[in-house]
Amino acid sequence: MFNKVSHIGIAVKDLQSSMDLFSRLFGKKPDHTEELPDQKVKTAMFTVGPSSIELTQATDPSSPVSRFLEKRGEGVHHVSFVVDDIERELARLKGAGFELIDERPRIGADGTLVAFLHPQSTNGVLIEISQKQ
Amino acid sequence: MFNKVSHIGIAVKDLQSSMDLFSRLFGKKPDHTEELPDQKVKTAMFTVGPSSIELTQATDPSSPVSRFLEKRGEGVHHVSFVVDDIERELARLKGAGFELIDERPRIGADGTLVAFLHPQSTNGVLIEISQKQ
Repeated sequence: MFNKVSHIGIAVKDLQSSMDLFSRLFGKKPDHTEELPDQKVKTAMFTVGPSSIELTQATDPSSPVSRFLEKRGEGVHHVSFVVDDIERELARLKGAGFELIDERPRIGADGTLVAFLHPQSTNGVLIEISQKQ
Repeated sequence: MFNKVSHIGIAVKDLQSSMDLFSRLFGKKPDHTEELPDQKVKTAMFTVGPSSIELTQATDPSSPVSRFLEKRGEGVHHVSFVVDDIERELARLKGAGFELIDERPRIGADGTLVAFLHPQSTNGVLIEISQKQ
């Protein structure tokens, strides 16, 4: 079951200037910043009620976020949903014909289990599902 | 104050096939469908916890959603946030340098008051704010 929107991921060119921009938008500073060297990104999270907005800047040209920016420019990169049981959801979604980027959950930010579905099978929207451990 | 993500709007070419797709994704039927002739769109809403996913198909080539699809293809079209006081937020955001598409709130789906910010001033993300009346 999909419980809520965990976060909306936004690809940005320059994290510092986008943090300033979204701080003005939301009227508050980001709640959390993090660098994820294995994913070659750095991020800033703004909590908005039960969900978050995650700004992501690539730290290396080989990062998927760099390729997204080249192709599409800045904007919404992915939408992440909290699920109860990620293994069960992945099996259900595979059975329902969705193309999985991650056949098995992997460890994401904050130690959550995450998996991505391929946007070709979801109307161009890169969808992540996540489960808190 | 931004209270929560109201909904994520996704532009789709064919509402019926996308409703089927997202019904398989979420494991349930849409909660609400609506045609908005003045905006030249028809929509389907899937409630996911405290937020919704809104699929939108243009019903006329002159609809902004048609132009979005031509330019960007299917995908996330806008992100909508619930605010307490839309007039106060619009004044605050204008003062903070954001470019407003709607200087004054207008009536959106379900009779809510809505206003859009220009994506050029928000890192390519079309942002809507909304207030329940």
